[in-house]
Amino acid sequence: MSSSFERVTVLGAGVLGMQIAFQTAVHGFAVTSYDVSDEAVAQARGRLDAIVGQYLGEVRDADPDAVRAAAAGIRFETDLAAAVADADLVIEAVPESLELKRGVYRALAQVAPERTVLATNSSTLLPSDLVESTGRPERFLALHFANHIWAQNTAEIMGTSRTDPAVADRVAAFAEEIGMVPIRLRKEQPGYVLNSLLVPFLDAAAGLFMKDVADPATIDATWRIATGAPLGPFQIFDVVGLRTAYAVSIAGNAESRAFAARLQRDYLDRGLLGVESGEGFYTYR
Amino acid sequence: MSSSFERVTVLGAGVLGMQIAFQTAVHGFAVTSYDVSDEAVAQARGRLDAIVGQYLGEVRDADPDAVRAAAAGIRFETDLAAAVADADLVIEAVPESLELKRGVYRALAQVAPERTVLATNSSTLLPSDLVESTGRPERFLALHFANHIWAQNTAEIMGTSRTDPAVADRVAAFAEEIGMVPIRLRKEQPGYVLNSLLVPFLDAAAGLFMKDVADPATIDATWRIATGAPLGPFQIFDVVGLRTAYAVSIAGNAESRAFAARLQRDYLDRGLLGVESGEGFYTYR
Repeated sequence: MSSSFERVTVLGAGVLGMQIAFQTAVHGFAVTSYDVSDEAVAQARGRLDAIVGQYLGEVRDADPDAVRAAAAGIRFETDLAAAVADADLVIEAVPESLELKRGVYRALAQVAPERTVLATNSSTLLPSDLVESTGRPERFLALHFANHIWAQNTAEIMGTSRTDPAVADRVAAFAEEIGMVPIRLRKEQPGYVLNSLLVPFLDAAAGLFMKDVADPATIDATWRIATGAPLGPFQIFDVVGLRTAYAVSIAGNAESRAFAARLQRDYLDRGLLGVESGEGFYTYR
Repeated sequence: MSSSFERVTVLGAGVLGMQIAFQTAVHGFAVTSYDVSDEAVAQARGRLDAIVGQYLGEVRDADPDAVRAAAAGIRFETDLAAAVADADLVIEAVPESLELKRGVYRALAQVAPERTVLATNSSTLLPSDLVESTGRPERFLALHFANHIWAQNTAEIMGTSRTDPAVADRVAAFAEEIGMVPIRLRKEQPGYVLNSLLVPFLDAAAGLFMKDVADPATIDATWRIATGAPLGPFQIFDVVGLRTAYAVSIAGNAESRAFAARLQRDYLDRGLLGVESGEGFYTYR
């Protein structure tokens, strides 16, 4: 089936929001990227240039001219009503604050066409936390992407009990249309599928590290050899970024918070953020 | 460094015990395989033939004549004193029962030479559960192998507080000499490194399955795409075997036991054991 979406607006032009807009534009959709100010849009343009460069460096069969043209075709907007006036689908990727997101949906409810489907990219909130603000429970769900969208191309799709299944089908079709593998959840699950697996796995690795059972390189080698995986848990921490690992751990139980404190003291306070800074549990390049 | 071991005796000629004996013999050691009866030894010989066939099918650069000669050189024994009389290292791989293992160590303490190093392959017991029966705490530790030993070549090495570090060094050297990657643990940890990671990960997957958040194929695809791993958790369940998954889960908390009951009803009772039976969460061949 086809999504029948043509015009897609992405709210929030941060790292992931800009990747979503880019990935959607590259696959032929008319894309609008919304952020709150001219300063934010200026930053977003720089971010988009970096994404184009990274994408062309990684995706061998990409046509550079077509990719650059698709990116150049993204329309930037700072006026919410103008940004969504003709949108078939709005993907919300604004910062992870319940009150901020609820405010965005209350505003959207006023200005988005009745037919427009709304999707949240929230990682930590459930769509049922937001649905009351949308004014259109049957056309609202979560559509969750991962960082490095063209490589880690999962799109987790999770509705509330009130989401129209036909709308979820269209959103899944859209996910395929932009090169994603749709991951359909049958019910709401905090952390979706991926983080429901990843967080306990990384917690277990952090526990071995905190108890000093073995060092990160030994723990990682064990996992790689036993499962054939390319990366062990501490390599994943470095890829995800130690700031993100800290943010997840500080919100956890006492053991997780102890790990967060260790990350702060031995890594973040020394500028060791993982792959992005060139050093974390391992040194890069 | 070198282990200085020459003669190695493996107690218990079950699936893993026979793989350990074979892997050790192929790497040039003089190996004795001990089991309790002529019937057990007859079964073990059949098991060894199967291991040789599987090994030659999988390890491309193996010299078939040399491998067959090494396997043929394994001495089988049903008399414990004779089996260990000249052993430098005894690897104990008898069934996973605390009382059975303690009895084996009490018997070994009487008949093994004073210099002989003793290592348990126990998956679920700690060496400190057994050390009092060995009569030689400084020369006793755990040396834990994984099934499919030549491919999943981790050797987890875990002593008690009383293990002589020089003995642990020799055992780590021995692990390398037989083609293993030694995984040194600094302290006792139930489940060693690997199962300390694997069990929470598989528990999380089982939880998503039991809550019907998504089906196994969807959960597996999510993990593979997001982490680059070759196998998702339900593929790992099938490889490990659903009988083993049942045994681990039935010993867990209420949620794990519910998963065990589901495995029993929908899989084990129908003869679906995973890869070994040709069907589990997936169908093979």
